[in-house]
Amino acid sequence: MTEEMESRPWEQLEEILEQGDLQELTQYIDELPADEMARALSRISREDQKEIVRILDWEDAADLFEQVPDSLAVDLLRQVSTGDAAKVLNQMQSNERADLLAEFDDDEAEAILEKMQPEAAADARLLTSYPPGVAGGLMITEYLWHYETSVVDDVIRDFREHAEIYSDYDVQYTYIVTEEMVLIGVLRLRDLLLSPNKRKIADIMIRNPLYVRDNTPLTELGAFFDEHELMGVPVADSDGRLIGIVRREDVDDALIDRSDSDYLKSQGIVGGEELRSMSVWRRSSRRLSWLSINIVLNMIAASVIAAYQDTLSAVIVLAVFLPIISDMSGCSGNQAVAVSIRELSLGLVKPFEVFRVWTKEISVGLINGLVLGLLLGTAAFLWKGNVYLGIVIASAMAINTVVAVSIGGCIPLLLKWMKSDPALASGPILTTITDMCGFLLVLSFATMMLAKLQ
Amino acid sequence: MTEEMESRPWEQLEEILEQGDLQELTQYIDELPADEMARALSRISREDQKEIVRILDWEDAADLFEQVPDSLAVDLLRQVSTGDAAKVLNQMQSNERADLLAEFDDDEAEAILEKMQPEAAADARLLTSYPPGVAGGLMITEYLWHYETSVVDDVIRDFREHAEIYSDYDVQYTYIVTEEMVLIGVLRLRDLLLSPNKRKIADIMIRNPLYVRDNTPLTELGAFFDEHELMGVPVADSDGRLIGIVRREDVDDALIDRSDSDYLKSQGIVGGEELRSMSVWRRSSRRLSWLSINIVLNMIAASVIAAYQDTLSAVIVLAVFLPIISDMSGCSGNQAVAVSIRELSLGLVKPFEVFRVWTKEISVGLINGLVLGLLLGTAAFLWKGNVYLGIVIASAMAINTVVAVSIGGCIPLLLKWMKSDPALASGPILTTITDMCGFLLVLSFATMMLAKLQ
Repeated sequence: MTEEMESRPWEQLEEILEQGDLQELTQYIDELPADEMARALSRISREDQKEIVRILDWEDAADLFEQVPDSLAVDLLRQVSTGDAAKVLNQMQSNERADLLAEFDDDEAEAILEKMQPEAAADARLLTSYPPGVAGGLMITEYLWHYETSVVDDVIRDFREHAEIYSDYDVQYTYIVTEEMVLIGVLRLRDLLLSPNKRKIADIMIRNPLYVRDNTPLTELGAFFDEHELMGVPVADSDGRLIGIVRREDVDDALIDRSDSDYLKSQGIVGGEELRSMSVWRRSSRRLSWLSINIVLNMIAASVIAAYQDTLSAVIVLAVFLPIISDMSGCSGNQAVAVSIRELSLGLVKPFEVFRVWTKEISVGLINGLVLGLLLGTAAFLWKGNVYLGIVIASAMAINTVVAVSIGGCIPLLLKWMKSDPALASGPILTTITDMCGFLLVLSFATMMLAKLQ
Repeated sequence: MTEEMESRPWEQLEEILEQGDLQELTQYIDELPADEMARALSRISREDQKEIVRILDWEDAADLFEQVPDSLAVDLLRQVSTGDAAKVLNQMQSNERADLLAEFDDDEAEAILEKMQPEAAADARLLTSYPPGVAGGLMITEYLWHYETSVVDDVIRDFREHAEIYSDYDVQYTYIVTEEMVLIGVLRLRDLLLSPNKRKIADIMIRNPLYVRDNTPLTELGAFFDEHELMGVPVADSDGRLIGIVRREDVDDALIDRSDSDYLKSQGIVGGEELRSMSVWRRSSRRLSWLSINIVLNMIAASVIAAYQDTLSAVIVLAVFLPIISDMSGCSGNQAVAVSIRELSLGLVKPFEVFRVWTKEISVGLINGLVLGLLLGTAAFLWKGNVYLGIVIASAMAINTVVAVSIGGCIPLLLKWMKSDPALASGPILTTITDMCGFLLVLSFATMMLAKLQ
């Protein structure tokens, strides 16, 4: 495999596309590992990308798109007609399809949905109607179900008749429902095959099967699969009707995605992930949308400095310490943000437990504030030989560290409580407040001691 | 489930522990969802935590520890004797055991290993000998294997004799090896049961099974499972000998962990995750170890300001813009860092492709630098009515944005190339350089135009 890592699979892909040999293309795509395939697809020209969708069977194209990162798949689908995109999406697994549709703008998604097969479109509308990260949005709709009134023979006959469709499903069970589609049992295929033809399904099914509600959040689904050695769990709506199956692997994938997206958002990549294969304008404008909010917040924070210009020109050395205090408070606060977001996603803390988090942070803040304050204060004193300067800097640093960890620890919980996204908004809110507070502390303490500092 | 979320399971746990009823404790632990269990465990007293390990069977304790976050499990195991910790670890699955041992200090781990069962300890030593995130460290050593020379009857007899051990394994296959333990086939249990007793295993096994080398990195394992609908893949060492099985779910878990830890490290939580149930001193000192490096880097960067004090006191308004330029450049650079780390982990970019990343970043940097520079420069001009101030600020902001995205985009690749951890070191290196560079640009431009600015 190592040699392949050094290779440039996109060059081979371009060569095959030039020859236009469908069989060779299909085989090459089959054999290339998924990550190398994504790498190759992201490096070929727009024309070649379109060509691939044009040449491949819809089903092979769907397989390919299921393997590459969502943002790359959407980028590729944007380049073909909505009709072609619909044909590829028709062939995809229900949850992968819904994930991709959710990444399109509403208008684009609607245009594609209208051209999809009615059944696939209805499935996709159901899945995308759920907020991200709950069972209803993560489930697949490819599963087997039968009525409780069936007998063994009915089910086996149904299997044979629909063998072609069912062969795409990961089948170990069929789910047994009432006439109103209420889930009442699960039947192992093994038990089906070992039972006489006329036996009633209701007699051999396992009653009261485990299930989750459609609004069960991802964290709880993760905990469910940690506990139960199952590959999937049925999903019921508020009336107990079976509407899908959530598979373990999709929950795992969603947990990976959430964690990746928390990381990206905390670093200012918002609105979905960015790949360098996207156009410069798109990358630039998405990054700018975040940066331009931030620069305004920064100007607001810096206005505190502007208000204290007289103090600052009297004691110019303070200007050296302002960016240090701003940056260090941001660091301390972000540590607390990260721990809170982590504990929230592990379910170790609930959004209403703000006070508990605050008491836990305040002690760390006091210790770290004292240490950092002493460090920076001593540096200030040693540099200028003025003990009052040391005191101003040390106390501002210490107090602002306590402020920063308090805000950093609590703000993710408050945002979550208000149904906002903590990974996205915590950073900017934190740094704006701690900057303002830090500047205010340094400059107001300095104003009070102005005579001693000059 | 919703009602349970509002409950305080640790109170019930404390009550049960007070009564000391083993059966009730075991049942309560069995029934509580994994995330609630972790929440409860992290909130009870140290004494109660020890009590749980003391009361539970070793096997139940092992089950419990497999369900909670690693950092919490290690924290709990640190509180009991090394002998008791060894007894719990003996009962754990090989890979979970190795993960926990890897979180202990070397001395602690060695002390526990010495008290473990020799076989479990040898397994653990093998797994922990691999660097994190390769197949050898992720694999489990609980799997079935038989010699190619066996006949059906031998294998079935072996199953019956070891039924108790094997019942813990997730068994669908047995792996077939030569006398030298070289993997040459895989046998489905179904095929075993449907074959005559005297049939040779070599005749019914599937030859040339898929396998991975022990040094296969996590990214490639993820791609492997994206491509192949398998629950696990055998792992071979450099001589082709079978040494373990990597399961899909463990690869998924490792991907989640990597992403979580990238996030935590980028926010300054280093040396493993922090839970608020850990002691104040431990949390505080771990955060401080990071902050104290950062404060030194900050002082180095701020020394640039100190060198230009004369310019600054002549044009005091510059002090307002220094923290803005420092913070904004940090933001722009961190966006580029995040995209690089993401592309590295998706395998879309290789560490040696620094130049490619740089050319992709420079264009985004130019656009965003121009926009942000114009914005901040215009604000400066409008505020003070001095066009030269606007020019100084705008050009410093624009140039520093280009510098920031260049460094931010390339530094994760360079760190990865040097086998360092990009998520950990990228941030501090980035902000130190961009701070110095930003301060230098503003203050040196201002020095050149000093006459026009006053």
